[in-house]
Amino acid sequence: MSGTVYLVGAGPGAADLLTVRAARLLGEAEVVFHDALITEDVLSLASKAEKIPVGKRSGRHATAQRFINKRLADAARGHSVVVRLKGGDPMLFGRAHEEISYLQARGVRVEVVPGVTAALAASAELGVSLTRRGAARTVALVTPRVAAGERGSHWVASVLAADTAAIYMGAGEALAIAAALIEAGKPASTPIALVEDASLPEMRVQYATLEALPRLATAGGPTLILLGEVYREALSEAVATLRRRGQASQRP
Amino acid sequence: MSGTVYLVGAGPGAADLLTVRAARLLGEAEVVFHDALITEDVLSLASKAEKIPVGKRSGRHATAQRFINKRLADAARGHSVVVRLKGGDPMLFGRAHEEISYLQARGVRVEVVPGVTAALAASAELGVSLTRRGAARTVALVTPRVAAGERGSHWVASVLAADTAAIYMGAGEALAIAAALIEAGKPASTPIALVEDASLPEMRVQYATLEALPRLATAGGPTLILLGEVYREALSEAVATLRRRGQASQRP
Repeated sequence: MSGTVYLVGAGPGAADLLTVRAARLLGEAEVVFHDALITEDVLSLASKAEKIPVGKRSGRHATAQRFINKRLADAARGHSVVVRLKGGDPMLFGRAHEEISYLQARGVRVEVVPGVTAALAASAELGVSLTRRGAARTVALVTPRVAAGERGSHWVASVLAADTAAIYMGAGEALAIAAALIEAGKPASTPIALVEDASLPEMRVQYATLEALPRLATAGGPTLILLGEVYREALSEAVATLRRRGQASQRP
Repeated sequence: MSGTVYLVGAGPGAADLLTVRAARLLGEAEVVFHDALITEDVLSLASKAEKIPVGKRSGRHATAQRFINKRLADAARGHSVVVRLKGGDPMLFGRAHEEISYLQARGVRVEVVPGVTAALAASAELGVSLTRRGAARTVALVTPRVAAGERGSHWVASVLAADTAAIYMGAGEALAIAAALIEAGKPASTPIALVEDASLPEMRVQYATLEALPRLATAGGPTLILLGEVYREALSEAVATLRRRGQASQRP
């Protein structure tokens, strides 16, 4: 007996932002291997599954990934529906390639179920479209995390070439990100939106300029940095609101 | 009485790739304004709604968009749940900005429900991740469609700066796209995947090189061009399969 491993996108966090297919597969799953950041609400959809956290910490990736690959293949030998649940979408910064290659090489059937990625969930919450007719027609999705010996285009060039950029997994490196982009020629006054825990009740949104990015505090949740002129209007409104509050508090 | 207009992402086409929230809202909707390309399976989820197609053809955009904006606002005056259903995700090439601005300026409550965008749905079907550890860390989402007087970064620069690119709404301009990218320095041998009707039973996938893109035929469905070294392996396999078939058919 050999089952199927489903690489399933868990979306941004809210349980009702999973796809209908993902929710159904979680309900059928016998084993669920999940990332550290998957919410309890999402996991509770896997009512009859054994749930196994396989969160990785950066720096110890290689060993951990080999271990996950092997556990997925082992699980597929004893179960018909094995779910590998990944935050957002599996095919974008999800390291799906390593799991798919390993499983396929061992004859294990793999299917991928896409999910709502953070950039789209955050845009929905902000009410600000990533693209705008006549002003923003290109979007870059990047991560500044660089492993030793990493190849591939530099994330800075991609951000500079696009009208709007979404920087994933960058909150811990805000100072380096802002410095690199400004040094490369991105205006320090470029509007940004910092969105933490998009789609969850505890979501936090901060508008600022690129220059001010390193001064923004985050609470440790999954954080996305959105960047581009499409956020100019929302930034202006946020500044105006702060000014009104400041004036109100100074009244006698 | 004033209702809420929900801008809802319909995802790539398969009805079970809507989010759980989108499916629920369609079930509650009294009126649904939908793009031309929304599938019957998806529309059938709006069981009690009046369904109004508002497909636009390029070139007649401005007038049509104003008309759609007005109809959405009018509908919200008589109904509590109005859904504006858009293919993929509303905030990516969905012209959501124009509808949100219009509705908010008139005091109509707007909420956006994100969706699975074509690049992620196509990647799930191909089993090829847009990003790959050590090789592809930046993704560009672009459209080559240019309206008169359009500003914003040029899509060619964004594609060149990224490791992997997804070109939306470009199938009708394959010759111009290939020429522009090759002239700008993208190798003619860059692997591409042309994915039509991603997620639907009639899905068609073609692997080729950038140079050969203009020679690929499409059947008129929504088509995505994926481009980058991550497709090299799948292209080699497709070529090998064709060769084997060719040899087999030449046997006596």
